[in-house]
Amino acid sequence: MPISHYQCSQCERKFEPGTVTYTCLTCGGNLDTHFSFEDNPSQVHQSEILESKETSLWRYAPLLAVPDPGFENTPLHRVGLTPIYQPEKLREELGLRTLFVKDESCNPSASFKDRASAIVISRAIEANIDTIIAASTGNAGAAMACMAASVGKRAIILAPRSAPPAKIAQLLTFGAEVILVDGSYDDAFDLSISASNEFGWYNRNTGYNPYTVEGKKTAGLEIWEQVIRFLPAESNLNVFIPVGDGNILSGVAKGFVDLLALGWIKKLPRLIGVQAEGSSAIYNAFIQKRNQIEPVIASTVADSISVDLPRDGLRALNRVRQSSGFFITVTDQQILAAIPQLGSAGLFVEPAAAAAYAGLLHALKSNQIDPATPALVLATGSGLKDINAAMRSVHPAPIIEPSLDKLKEVLRV
Amino acid sequence: MPISHYQCSQCERKFEPGTVTYTCLTCGGNLDTHFSFEDNPSQVHQSEILESKETSLWRYAPLLAVPDPGFENTPLHRVGLTPIYQPEKLREELGLRTLFVKDESCNPSASFKDRASAIVISRAIEANIDTIIAASTGNAGAAMACMAASVGKRAIILAPRSAPPAKIAQLLTFGAEVILVDGSYDDAFDLSISASNEFGWYNRNTGYNPYTVEGKKTAGLEIWEQVIRFLPAESNLNVFIPVGDGNILSGVAKGFVDLLALGWIKKLPRLIGVQAEGSSAIYNAFIQKRNQIEPVIASTVADSISVDLPRDGLRALNRVRQSSGFFITVTDQQILAAIPQLGSAGLFVEPAAAAAYAGLLHALKSNQIDPATPALVLATGSGLKDINAAMRSVHPAPIIEPSLDKLKEVLRV
Repeated sequence: MPISHYQCSQCERKFEPGTVTYTCLTCGGNLDTHFSFEDNPSQVHQSEILESKETSLWRYAPLLAVPDPGFENTPLHRVGLTPIYQPEKLREELGLRTLFVKDESCNPSASFKDRASAIVISRAIEANIDTIIAASTGNAGAAMACMAASVGKRAIILAPRSAPPAKIAQLLTFGAEVILVDGSYDDAFDLSISASNEFGWYNRNTGYNPYTVEGKKTAGLEIWEQVIRFLPAESNLNVFIPVGDGNILSGVAKGFVDLLALGWIKKLPRLIGVQAEGSSAIYNAFIQKRNQIEPVIASTVADSISVDLPRDGLRALNRVRQSSGFFITVTDQQILAAIPQLGSAGLFVEPAAAAAYAGLLHALKSNQIDPATPALVLATGSGLKDINAAMRSVHPAPIIEPSLDKLKEVLRV
Repeated sequence: MPISHYQCSQCERKFEPGTVTYTCLTCGGNLDTHFSFEDNPSQVHQSEILESKETSLWRYAPLLAVPDPGFENTPLHRVGLTPIYQPEKLREELGLRTLFVKDESCNPSASFKDRASAIVISRAIEANIDTIIAASTGNAGAAMACMAASVGKRAIILAPRSAPPAKIAQLLTFGAEVILVDGSYDDAFDLSISASNEFGWYNRNTGYNPYTVEGKKTAGLEIWEQVIRFLPAESNLNVFIPVGDGNILSGVAKGFVDLLALGWIKKLPRLIGVQAEGSSAIYNAFIQKRNQIEPVIASTVADSISVDLPRDGLRALNRVRQSSGFFITVTDQQILAAIPQLGSAGLFVEPAAAAAYAGLLHALKSNQIDPATPALVLATGSGLKDINAAMRSVHPAPIIEPSLDKLKEVLRV
């Protein structure tokens, strides 16, 4: 789909296509991508999408910033169109009228981040760039490494030295060149930008690259296709999203904003950003009604949303305000408790995803949402990504001698 | 689909539906399920399946031993129809004409075993039994716990005390009642049978319950729908399957046997059972042309196929012979080496899945298969299931100071 222009999400300066690659040349703000269909919605017909036989996010090609790159028989063509569950037991427990959970663990590298990496890799193919570099401690790096492997591109991942060895192993397995930096995530972030500038490599850093949001918006498009268009016209939808650097929320919101421009939805769903209490930089700004975000020293069990300096925080803040939504925080205890709660419906989630569910619980208890309004929880990644957190969330199993009597005793039957 | 009868896979005694639940009442052999469509293939039309809008294994309902149980918006309706990849880079490296990899990590609990548990849970719903019990150290237990949670049934999992705490955590998260038995897997297996006999619980033990094979056969049906029907009529297909207790191979084979009875395929694909060198009980019998399987003391990095006494070994042995296939073994070193090989195509697999790929490599090198014949590797589970093995399969990442000079040095640019 033709891009009409880019616009800075902060100072609103516009850029013609081809004149900018990453952030605003004036203020350094993250860029929004604008399309010709915003002025001329009849360029895209719903039926093109709804009747597509494609079962990945490439079904939304008419609304994307990049073309479908092909590679049909690889994981690149398996990203997105993740399932929506309606766990009846949880809905009842919560006293909600309608509950949806979108399960992102079904993506090839088992997290939401594959969406951003799929679009970035397509852009790299289009621009004929062979090497992609990114700073990441976890899911984003794994997603980039997986997508690069799918199409035979080179991936270089810079991670702080403190990154968990298990997460690094996944990156290495995909054949990425992983360099551990003796410093913080911010050091890795800055070094990756120096390197992409120096060598002409394509930089996938979250927020910094405008196409990460363009990838993540596909979740918003799916929520429309799978949920919103079946709701009564007058119904709102509360969408609970875990927030670290803010880019996932900005991405899902961008999907809704594009749909509004097309006239396919009549109002924006309400976005509720859920942060961990120990990593609440954006929440703090929201509560204090500020337009600047003060970094924190983040510490939470939910490592995917543990962020000192949110790289897409301002945009996320604005998107939540625009949707009449709000931010909320949850404690590590609430996050850990939510893991077996979602598990009891057959969903095994990472702590960040559990945080979104814990946020829903907290918002209901504190009367910040109406239980009659449908709610959707974005479950961003698989529990297999962080087995240690899962172990902390449950009680150990009893040990018995292998006899029926002992089994009866322990099961009280 | 009406079941015509069950038949012992060993002594061939037949049983009317409703007269037997688990194994042969004469010899204890595992039972095959037979359908009325075998005598009357016109009962089922291909179009019923090929035109189904259902995107899970329930699209094969006309060929299954149980009805589609509903629960559309739960993980139970997300099992199966896993992707087929065609990794071009690996195909070239191997010098194969055609290579397919079927990625089972996309199932809800991230392994192939969801297929068996989905069918077993449907049977439990049909029979109105509320509690399902199983002995498992890993994927099968996780799959059972996940499916039981999806539909609100009670799952009791018995595991040997030595089971890895991380795997136990996943079971507990799904809300299963997990009991660790101070003994071996065989002790847990026997105790679960005593308990299901005593309390009327439904037993899901692999092989012992005839419906585990009926679930696993759906992978064979999918291989037909996704691959075989597009191959030239004269083409054969070599299917590489990791083998521990033999039930996955027996299951995939059953799918092919049903398709042959329907006339939808003209010959059985060739099954190649891949065992770890340290867990080769079935391979040993195959090589020595015996019809009995001697237990071994199993030890391999691929824990999903580490089995002393294969519970479905005889049937797997017969199915391989019937298909003119063979067994092959691979070393732990070959298994570990295959993890980053598959990773380089964007597939992150558990060691058992890597074993299947290592088997393909070994069979090619030893001229046991023709590189012109299409080959398919069944990648049975996600690499996230065993991060320790992944860590052993790659070299550690270098650590540098956060400077461009140091980055240049380590990347040699």
